[in-house]
Amino acid sequence: MDLEIKKDLVSNWFKILQNAICHNINDIENSKAEFKSTSWKRSNRKDEGGGEYRILKNGKVFDKVGVNFSKVYGNFPKQLKKNIPGANKDPRFWASGISVVMHMKNPLIPAMHFNTRYICTKHDWFGGGIDVTPSKNDQNEKNEFHKILKMMCNRHNRKYYSKYKKWCDEYFYLPHRKEPRGIGGIFFDYKKDSFEKDFKFVRDVGVTFQLIFNKIIKKKIKKKWTTKDKELQYIKRGRYTEFNLLYDRGTKFGLQTRGNVEGILMSLPPLAKWK
Amino acid sequence: MDLEIKKDLVSNWFKILQNAICHNINDIENSKAEFKSTSWKRSNRKDEGGGEYRILKNGKVFDKVGVNFSKVYGNFPKQLKKNIPGANKDPRFWASGISVVMHMKNPLIPAMHFNTRYICTKHDWFGGGIDVTPSKNDQNEKNEFHKILKMMCNRHNRKYYSKYKKWCDEYFYLPHRKEPRGIGGIFFDYKKDSFEKDFKFVRDVGVTFQLIFNKIIKKKIKKKWTTKDKELQYIKRGRYTEFNLLYDRGTKFGLQTRGNVEGILMSLPPLAKWK
Repeated sequence: MDLEIKKDLVSNWFKILQNAICHNINDIENSKAEFKSTSWKRSNRKDEGGGEYRILKNGKVFDKVGVNFSKVYGNFPKQLKKNIPGANKDPRFWASGISVVMHMKNPLIPAMHFNTRYICTKHDWFGGGIDVTPSKNDQNEKNEFHKILKMMCNRHNRKYYSKYKKWCDEYFYLPHRKEPRGIGGIFFDYKKDSFEKDFKFVRDVGVTFQLIFNKIIKKKIKKKWTTKDKELQYIKRGRYTEFNLLYDRGTKFGLQTRGNVEGILMSLPPLAKWK
Repeated sequence: MDLEIKKDLVSNWFKILQNAICHNINDIENSKAEFKSTSWKRSNRKDEGGGEYRILKNGKVFDKVGVNFSKVYGNFPKQLKKNIPGANKDPRFWASGISVVMHMKNPLIPAMHFNTRYICTKHDWFGGGIDVTPSKNDQNEKNEFHKILKMMCNRHNRKYYSKYKKWCDEYFYLPHRKEPRGIGGIFFDYKKDSFEKDFKFVRDVGVTFQLIFNKIIKKKIKKKWTTKDKELQYIKRGRYTEFNLLYDRGTKFGLQTRGNVEGILMSLPPLAKWK
């Protein structure tokens, strides 16, 4: 298949998924709080793509949720070239992705994060994942979350779940705190086995994220919480902020490729505390 | 002068200054809020130094203030070696420093930061600075702050102020936001002109920091502020957090040399918001 067709197929899917997830969130939120959409371009001088991010704030269910779509292309800046497969000889790149971060009003409901992306240099590959960050331990929730991910992975390849779970645990880790960001999930990158199979998997990851956040939210949406629960959530959000600013590759990639700052940092919580 | 004597002189000064600043802060705070002191060691197995940080929280004047002293030694980790002068051939280092970060209750009073340090590898040098981060513009305050710094610098060398002011502006800058962290100040590093002169300057920087924070706080301590002022402060603290986690060398140095996490991240505000 022609690479241009692949790019179109994938970025169209990410755009459709952005719409579907926003509709889904609106249905759950069911209040006056609404998504605000911002479209941006990477350059005013020439066409280097851009994106559209949508943020809903101060909802009854969602404290802050961002649903970010982007499709960008151009040349990698020097400092990034050596870290990206295939970019050292030819700095041209094309990248499209969708990412979602949910910070919930109810501190018993975990923060949830999902991302899938397709990147083309001399090579082309998929990356992405789903992970969940509770501020209060809930073993049942954790078990069910991982069970859904495992079943989804097994539909594609028996080796995926354990491989991508491990990758997730390693990636979402705060070495200075010696603690994981949350309860893990799946994480994959440089995935280039076969375009058809990989794209199918990536679509399944997106659909499964919807299944997961609906399940988790609905189970806890009416659960009573205390101010102590809320304080714990603020502290956990401080850790979340530390991870995203100190270590997250997506954040670094975005800031270094002149992505839209508000879009990149939409993953940050509305309010974080440090003791 | 023998290097060991220099190390002792400098780290003793930093320790004395930590005490003096804490007393000074207690006098201003004049409430039940007290410093909590934590002493830590870099290693349990062998002597690699450590430090003592003192944090006062939820005061009437100070929202959160940390006064951090450390004296550490050992071997640089691999990833740092190539970035530190004189550490590539011989990874041994000795470092002592004092740093202070003040986050104020009254949002009309700026956050203030001061640090001085003495680092020994094959070379030995001083670094440090003073800078100020208001969330609301005050041109008079800015003018007076810089005037004091300029006078102080001029007592030592006519070239220092413009050089270190420029360095400060360049260092405390958020490229992704295209905005400075605050209103600048002075910043210097790799300072190794003459130990006697440099140490004298470093002591003057510490004493001048005391002069500055007393002046700035006393001028505004009774000024009324609005919830809007407070919200602006929370947003500015978000920017502060971004700088410290994304760019600050001290934070990176500390985390990578296995410093005490709470001590290193004491610079983070008690509460930050992102729109």
